[in-house]
Formats: sequence, C-alpha cells, structure tokens
Amino acid sequence: MSQRIYNFSAGPAVLPVPVLDEARENLHSLGETGIGIMEHSHRSKAFLAVYNETVERCRELAGIPDDYHILFLQGGASSQFFMAPMNFLTPDQTADFLVTGAWSKKAIAEAKRFGKTHIVCSSDDSNFNQIPTERNYSENPRYVHFTSNNTIFGTQFKTEPEIPAGATLVCDASSDIFSRPIDVTKYGMIYAGAQKNLGPSGVTLVIIHDDLVQSGSKDIPTMLQYRTHAEKESAFNTPPTFGIYIMGLVLKWIQNSGGVVELEKVNQQKAGKLYDYLDESQLFQGTAESDSRSLMNVTFVTGDAELDARFIETATARGLDGLKGHRSVGGMRASLYNAFPPEGVDALIELMREFEEGHR
Amino acid sequence: MSQRIYNFSAGPAVLPVPVLDEARENLHSLGETGIGIMEHSHRSKAFLAVYNETVERCRELAGIPDDYHILFLQGGASSQFFMAPMNFLTPDQTADFLVTGAWSKKAIAEAKRFGKTHIVCSSDDSNFNQIPTERNYSENPRYVHFTSNNTIFGTQFKTEPEIPAGATLVCDASSDIFSRPIDVTKYGMIYAGAQKNLGPSGVTLVIIHDDLVQSGSKDIPTMLQYRTHAEKESAFNTPPTFGIYIMGLVLKWIQNSGGVVELEKVNQQKAGKLYDYLDESQLFQGTAESDSRSLMNVTFVTGDAELDARFIETATARGLDGLKGHRSVGGMRASLYNAFPPEGVDALIELMREFEEGHR
Repeated sequence: MSQRIYNFSAGPAVLPVPVLDEARENLHSLGETGIGIMEHSHRSKAFLAVYNETVERCRELAGIPDDYHILFLQGGASSQFFMAPMNFLTPDQTADFLVTGAWSKKAIAEAKRFGKTHIVCSSDDSNFNQIPTERNYSENPRYVHFTSNNTIFGTQFKTEPEIPAGATLVCDASSDIFSRPIDVTKYGMIYAGAQKNLGPSGVTLVIIHDDLVQSGSKDIPTMLQYRTHAEKESAFNTPPTFGIYIMGLVLKWIQNSGGVVELEKVNQQKAGKLYDYLDESQLFQGTAESDSRSLMNVTFVTGDAELDARFIETATARGLDGLKGHRSVGGMRASLYNAFPPEGVDALIELMREFEEGHR
Repeated sequence: MSQRIYNFSAGPAVLPVPVLDEARENLHSLGETGIGIMEHSHRSKAFLAVYNETVERCRELAGIPDDYHILFLQGGASSQFFMAPMNFLTPDQTADFLVTGAWSKKAIAEAKRFGKTHIVCSSDDSNFNQIPTERNYSENPRYVHFTSNNTIFGTQFKTEPEIPAGATLVCDASSDIFSRPIDVTKYGMIYAGAQKNLGPSGVTLVIIHDDLVQSGSKDIPTMLQYRTHAEKESAFNTPPTFGIYIMGLVLKWIQNSGGVVELEKVNQQKAGKLYDYLDESQLFQGTAESDSRSLMNVTFVTGDAELDARFIETATARGLDGLKGHRSVGGMRASLYNAFPPEGVDALIELMREFEEGHR
C-alpha cells in the first residue's frame, strides 16, 4: 500500500482510515457471509442490518426525532435543487432563498421552473465573501432555502437563519453536515451529498419531516416523490448499497470520535489554527470576511496568481494535494472536513511559513 | 477473509474476484497517488484517467460509434423510466412498449405522465412466461421501448425487435448488458443499472445517440436533461466515482475474458446445463417457455411451495445463496450473470439431483 498523503480536496474528499480499513476487509465477504458488501442483495438480511444500523447511527448522532425520515437518494445535492420545488412549490407559491454562493444560485434556477422565488439576501456583489446579516423574507414563503456552508467561497452560517413563523426551513448541508451539532427540529428538510463529510459520491442523505413528505405533489414521476422513498425506506428500487454501507462506517467513526460535539471542537481547532496564521501572515490572506469564515473550507490567496500557482505546486510536491482554489475565487482552498487529520493542518501551516520566508 | 459462497442473487449480484482484488488494493491509495479511489476529486487527473479508461473500454467492448454518448447517471433504471419520456415524449406523441414483465409495466406507467403509450405486445395473461412474437406497432411511434431480459420472469429477447422504419429503439438492458454481442447502431438508447452485470448499485450506464440527446426537451430540470450530462461528460455535478471505477474494472475483466463473444459462449454453457437438467428432471420444471428462456435468470419450481422452501433452505445451508424466486413467480431463481462462476452451476445441479432423489 502506498503511503497516504494529505488530501485537501473539496469533494470527493478524505475518508477516515478506520473506515477504509473496515471496507477493505468486507469487499470479498461482508463479515462471515461469504458475499462481498457490493454483492449483497438490497433485500438480504445482511444488507438490511447495514441499512438499519446506518439509519440508527444517523438518528442518534444528530438527535433526529421519529417524525423525520432518513432517506438515501441518488443524484447529489444537484438533484435536490429541483426535487424540493418539484414536490413542494406550486406556480402561485414563493420559495425564499438566502443566496450565498454558486450552489444557492443553482437551487434558485431550478425552483423558478416550478414557482416563484424571492431573494432574502445575497452577497453576490462581493463575490460571496460573507454571509449577509440583513435579510428580507417574502410575505408567506412556502419554504426558505439556505446553503449552510459554501464550499467554493469558504463561508458558513454560524447558525440557521431565523425564518418567518410557519415557514419551513430547507437546508443544503452537503459540506458541513455532522461537523457540529444542529437542532434538526428547526428544519423541514436537510440534504447532503455524501462526498464531503459522509462517504463516497453517489448517495445523498435526506432528513425530512413526515408532514413535508406528505404535502408533496403526487403528479410527478414516482422516483421523484419523497413519499415513494419514505414509504419504501429507500428501497423502492435498488439503493446505492455500497455508499450507504460506507456512510454507516463514517457515522460509526464519528460516534467513536465522541460525536458531533467533539468533532466541532476538533474542527474549530483545525480551522482556527489556519485562520490564526492567515491573520498574522504578510503573504497570505483569507478571502472570506472574519465573521463568515467556514470551518470546513479555508480559502486564501497571496494576491499574485503566479505566486499562488507556485505555492500549490510546492505543496503538491510535498504531498499536500488538492489545494487549488475554485476558479471563481482563485488562489487556494484547504478543505478540512471531519476526516481531515489535524497533522495535515500543521503540515500546511509549516509549509506556508516556509514559503512566506522564501518570498519576503 | 471468509470463504466465498455461490451468490445467485438477482442484483446486486456477484462480481468477478479479480475486480474485488484490485478494488481492495486501491481503497487506501489509487495506484501510487496516496489518495484512495473513493477520495479522489472527480476533477483530478487520477480520476479522469479512470473515467476515460472506463468509457474507452465500453466503446471497444460493444463497438459503440463516436456519435453515441456514454453516460454514467444515477437513480437506477427506474429513473430512466421517467427520464426517457420526460425528454422525448410530448403529449401528442406515442411511445410503444413491448410488455414482458414488471419493469416494462413500470416504464409505461411513467411514460403515461408525458404522452400517449401503446402496447405492442404483452405476455401479462400468462404471467410473463414468454416473449410474445405477435407485435402491433402504433402508426408513428416516437420511440419503441423494450426490456431485453426479464429478471423476475426469466425470459429474454433473443435479438432486438424489428421496429417500424424511422422509430427509435430504447432498451432497458439492466440484466443482460454485455452478456452477448449486440449491434448498438440499431438503438437510439440503451440503459442499464449496473448492479447485475456491470458493478455495484448506484450507477446507471446510458448509451445514447447524439441526435436523441439533442432532440430532448429543454423545459425540464437541468439534471434531468440528457444533454446536460452529455455536454459535461457525466461531470455536471459529482458523478458516482467509485461505481464508475468498479464498472471500469468489470469491463477490463470482460476484455480479459475474451470479450462479449466469449462471455456469450460461457453464458450459453452455464444456463444450457441448467435448462438441460430442468428438461429431464421429474421434480423441477422451468417456468419460462423454452424459446423465451433467459441466459441470465433461470426460474424454476417444484410445483409445491413447501418443497420449494425446503429446497431453498437446503441450498442456503450448502452455501448456495439467493435462490429464492421473486414473489410474483414463486419457486426458485438462479441468476447466472457474467461473473457467476460455472462451478456454481455444477454445484446447483448436483444439489438438485440429490434433492430430487431424496424426494421421489
């Protein structure tokens, strides 16, 4: 086995080593079954045990009440962008959006196909470098949608927005789910593509209140109704069994790491160290406003695109991979999801100090 | 590692051992990259190499011309049931269906939401135990849909149906893709959930002609337009990277096994042996008509539900797993996909003989 390097990728992203270890042991035979984890029927006793354990761990970790369904869907968060309005929005209704990056914009674009949309706030004019604090809701929004963490721009909501009474909160939590405790009961629906904090790409976790499920349209394709998947416990058709299995292992790893409360502390330490260094650096600056900084994705630049490129090259040569920022921000991005090891942050800061000394 | 048993599951199903071996070696680090296969960004050089190789192997194996796109989608064949009509059918147009089982019926139900449907033929009144030979097409079908192999009922088209000039052939080949050579140029679109002959569940292979892609509706969600995925080479959003990787390994295994021509011979031998035994058995009978028998799923019964149950129990105890038939047929089903080893068929026949002797 090759030595592992530090993987700062924004997603698919680093997974906990114990998860990879356990998956490796079960590829040819899940436990003593004599059948590998990918090869078990989704209706088999062995896979149903995996499924039930994954659901249970999810419920325990996030304190999810029984009136919420836990669904494993496909198509990524991008499919939720249209599935939510397709289910819940009629042409005369309005969905409210907090626009804090590229993903919120894509979510609005899809919602416009089904009903009216209203922009509560937007940081578009400052290239999404902050979470706006001034917010104006529409009169009677069917639901309010926000993206809790913005992978591209390195910003994050400190807590969920206060929304008008009676409105339903819908959250794309793809890049910070289970990185800290949240109060699920404040939400109608939380969705997350797995490939950042939960597992491999190809499975989307959807936590959704039963009232919302029941309120969905019945006049849309069967596979696109949340009720289909809620009623059949994600097995209306063959679910992504391997992705669900890996997610279960990741949730187990979170539990063994002390749960989301402990992970939040570690995440604060990891990102905190890097932001502290950025605040003192003469060469590197963070691109997000201080009060909007993400604990998951730390974005920074030198201000000189050529120097940025040289830094990324140096880092890659040292085994610090995936630091190139998204093209819409440029510079660097260090993604520090749950599974990213603290030593990797130290290694990055050490390299940045060294690079800064060499470029005074 | 536990000893592997014979897995007759209809899907997710047995995978070739060399595929599992290679996947195992790349879980912690894909080659020398120091990053596991699930952890690589879908935009990384390493994953793009995996993607390109998978597409190339697919093209070579099935002789797919350049004017066909090869897409890796999500949501299973069940999502293609609605995506095809959503893209291609308008309310005034008709799609024709050859109804040979539960999956065709589900495909029709979704098509009805978008346009008119016409039944070319159906074996519903004989519980789908055969592929009907008498067929009546509508006057000007937008497309003709068929399910090449019927997993539940153990029937299979020997070759694609002859369709009216100018019509487009759409095929759900989930359970027999790459089990034999086909002439792709006869099809507008072929789709297949991976979990039978191609890999793990959670990735759907779609082979689709560019003209068909371009003819699709633009007035539907971005993620549901084939053009989105064709233009972005399945990376409009994060594709199911691990599933694509495994599919690539399976395609390599097919190539190393002599390609689809050789596999067809092996498949004929495997299923042929079992059908020969069924034809001579006094206890077990096949449920499909002889001329419609599937090489992938062999369905059979004793005629006594209690005896069937006892046989399945005996087989399970002997390490022959997944033989229980679908509830709509009852009895037994032996799924003998590409990766199912010939020795497993011998073991099954041996057990059946033994069981028959014990129950004269």
